[in-house]
Amino acid sequence: MDSQQKLNMTMLCDFYELTMGNGYFQSGMRERMTYYDAFFRRIPDQGGFAICAGLERLIDYIENLHFTDEDIAYLQSKKLFSQEFLDYLREFRFTGDIWAVPEGTPVFPREPVVTVRAPAIQAQLIETFLLLTMNHQSLIATKANRIVRAAQGRTVLEFGSRRAQGTDAAITGARAAYIGGCAGTACTISDQLYGVPAGGTMAHAWVQMFDSEYDAFKTYCEIYPTNATLLVDTYNTLHSGIPNAIRAFNEVLRPRGITKCGIRLDSGDIAYLTQAGRKMLDEAGWQSCQISVSNSLDEYLIQDLLLQGAQVDMFGVGERMITASSQPVFGGVYKLCAIEDQQGEIIPKIKISENVEKITIPHFKKVYRIFDRATGKAEADYITLYNETVDPSQPLELFDPNATWKRKTYTDFVARPLQVPIFQGGRLVYRRPALPEIQRYCRQQVDTLWDEVKRFENPHIYYVDLSEKLWDIRQTLLHQRR
Amino acid sequence: MDSQQKLNMTMLCDFYELTMGNGYFQSGMRERMTYYDAFFRRIPDQGGFAICAGLERLIDYIENLHFTDEDIAYLQSKKLFSQEFLDYLREFRFTGDIWAVPEGTPVFPREPVVTVRAPAIQAQLIETFLLLTMNHQSLIATKANRIVRAAQGRTVLEFGSRRAQGTDAAITGARAAYIGGCAGTACTISDQLYGVPAGGTMAHAWVQMFDSEYDAFKTYCEIYPTNATLLVDTYNTLHSGIPNAIRAFNEVLRPRGITKCGIRLDSGDIAYLTQAGRKMLDEAGWQSCQISVSNSLDEYLIQDLLLQGAQVDMFGVGERMITASSQPVFGGVYKLCAIEDQQGEIIPKIKISENVEKITIPHFKKVYRIFDRATGKAEADYITLYNETVDPSQPLELFDPNATWKRKTYTDFVARPLQVPIFQGGRLVYRRPALPEIQRYCRQQVDTLWDEVKRFENPHIYYVDLSEKLWDIRQTLLHQRR
Repeated sequence: MDSQQKLNMTMLCDFYELTMGNGYFQSGMRERMTYYDAFFRRIPDQGGFAICAGLERLIDYIENLHFTDEDIAYLQSKKLFSQEFLDYLREFRFTGDIWAVPEGTPVFPREPVVTVRAPAIQAQLIETFLLLTMNHQSLIATKANRIVRAAQGRTVLEFGSRRAQGTDAAITGARAAYIGGCAGTACTISDQLYGVPAGGTMAHAWVQMFDSEYDAFKTYCEIYPTNATLLVDTYNTLHSGIPNAIRAFNEVLRPRGITKCGIRLDSGDIAYLTQAGRKMLDEAGWQSCQISVSNSLDEYLIQDLLLQGAQVDMFGVGERMITASSQPVFGGVYKLCAIEDQQGEIIPKIKISENVEKITIPHFKKVYRIFDRATGKAEADYITLYNETVDPSQPLELFDPNATWKRKTYTDFVARPLQVPIFQGGRLVYRRPALPEIQRYCRQQVDTLWDEVKRFENPHIYYVDLSEKLWDIRQTLLHQRR
Repeated sequence: MDSQQKLNMTMLCDFYELTMGNGYFQSGMRERMTYYDAFFRRIPDQGGFAICAGLERLIDYIENLHFTDEDIAYLQSKKLFSQEFLDYLREFRFTGDIWAVPEGTPVFPREPVVTVRAPAIQAQLIETFLLLTMNHQSLIATKANRIVRAAQGRTVLEFGSRRAQGTDAAITGARAAYIGGCAGTACTISDQLYGVPAGGTMAHAWVQMFDSEYDAFKTYCEIYPTNATLLVDTYNTLHSGIPNAIRAFNEVLRPRGITKCGIRLDSGDIAYLTQAGRKMLDEAGWQSCQISVSNSLDEYLIQDLLLQGAQVDMFGVGERMITASSQPVFGGVYKLCAIEDQQGEIIPKIKISENVEKITIPHFKKVYRIFDRATGKAEADYITLYNETVDPSQPLELFDPNATWKRKTYTDFVARPLQVPIFQGGRLVYRRPALPEIQRYCRQQVDTLWDEVKRFENPHIYYVDLSEKLWDIRQTLLHQRR
């Protein structure tokens, strides 16, 4: 059913993944086991947290990973790759392990969101697609969650397909927006493929097609008596649009006993027009008529409109959500953190950079989220070596990795591993949750964050700390390289 | 060969296109002939012009337009559409006419970039996909063209797949960037599908996989002696990266008489490091070594780096180009501009709005670009009724539609229609140019613009004027509605 899944995206890789792959192959490192972390460095819009999404698409990709004869022929034509390597690619499958944070989880900078353990060529090849899908869907889920929170319980719908950056951005963007809390989308195919509820009624063209606005409204109500949301701003919202809508409701819906209906505004001063409109509708006995608005909305405009007393039941949000326009890049990266030597021992690897924030956290790791048992609130994330455990019966002292004298001790807590196993030895071991389940889980998890982390302006910086052992290893590697 | 084309994107429509379609069907307007214009209102980044792109994808979409049995079953499940309408959709094909501005053409606000003449349901249904593909590819082509111009003749490569907003944004984004002037991409599948030249060498992981940076470089040079671009910033660019690169070049390439090679920097102070690096390379006799840089570049950073004397041969531009991050939305819209009555007479339609800039230009129209015959430069665009012609033997007086006393007369000019026929009666009548041809055409057409239109800061606002007849019709409709 998923036409996206039919596409073989194996060749959606950066070319250097293939040149390196051939290089590993030629230099005898083909089976060398490697560990990679996908993580990000900054939260979009200076927010307090991001929402992780994209895992389902990543699973589809890994399961379908293979090179077709056409792909091999194309690569051969580049005259860069050895015949042995091309033969190897013919049989290529993913045989490694993947752990990931489930979709809908709030995540924070520097912690591994996805961890891959696989032979060098495999782990390298999946870099681009893994980042692309996690970056894109996390970006949109994070933005949508901000917008939904700004709407304070009012319905938010995703309306942005026409301004999306390509077809996949429209289709999976609507999915990610739903995870972040949107109630539905205008994008029909996202409903068909992913079950994001799609809906819609009319554009200005409908109104223009008729001899009069009233004719357009009346006809629409007759055809869709139970789904009549009328667009009232084609000519003049208060002097023609709303009066004509009320007349159509009175003449078509009232005799049938239908009270459910709506109007939509797509231009003008939304705060003023919705208040005036609400009054007109109420006075005409259409208290049940819902008011939807659209027109380049985002979390800040919605906050402002509500502060000004706008009377809105439903926000249709388009380009600013589907492109996350205020900061349209989720900067996830994928970095080698360890390799195994011939004896299977894990050797941590670090990448040093002139830009200090680009220095990586080495080694195969685990992340725990520390919840306060009394409040249920998330207090900190705790990154450890892969084989460290947290004993909740003992006090846990965390420290700021950049200011090690800043310490805090947790006593009555629960430590939950953030990542779960997705692939083991190339085999899918994860039960994919249904989309509404992901949305619910996301809402619950966001509820575990303190309000201070959730505010838009200067949010509290959530603690993401390293275990003492991990911190020591990182320091040692840093000093060795200097 | 194009796996994107295998996808049936018919269901990538806003749901309201289907409710309206069913509505037109039910109210006897199914065969009513309609005219729509796709146009935009503002140039991204306050630039002086945009580059039009996306037409090829639109053609694929129109040619593949059909509803499958699965699509019909899905629509049926919504319990909103009449059985007759669903039966009609089973046989649905596009039978209308489409005119469009060829890809790579500089375009300006308010002028129709695509014009559609088709029965109401058909013209309505294609709205979302038409806008999506034109908006997305025009956005990226426009941004890429700015970045390429900032690089002043140096090579610009597209490196952004991992930060693209979904798979299609990566794949067709690379194509659009190539149209705008990029020399190639890192995205392998864009080469395979569209012929955008793909290339790449190594990531930091390659360097980290070896016991030493020097081993990594030496091995790479041995495997790819003619394609050796070494990433020198894994540990320390000047103290280890470049010295190790020079040593590898000396030991592997020099004995073979190879002079072609390169280094790449992805962090740190690019202006300083490239100047110091250039000096080290030159002193070691590697004047032929090319320096590539990446790291969140855009047109402004490139301009700045060159002003500061950075020694760069090649810019790899990632997230800021593939998402057009400074303004990630191309605001193209699709508006009804006329319908035909029962007698086939064209009735112009206008959409009035509280936001004055959202008021449309009614009627079935044509656009001419006026070139000065002596200089070959584009002077103005001239929008007329569909049946007006321009007589180049007569002086042509244009006036500002918002300040009608501002007039200018052209005498020695050529008037070229901007749009060309794409579909006639549902049949493709357009020869699709090859991608390099589009890139060449784009460069030539940008060259016809005055430098004043091309500058980044406060560019001259290019004239887009209406014919007297068209202006009169618009005024009449405006006054009728008030």
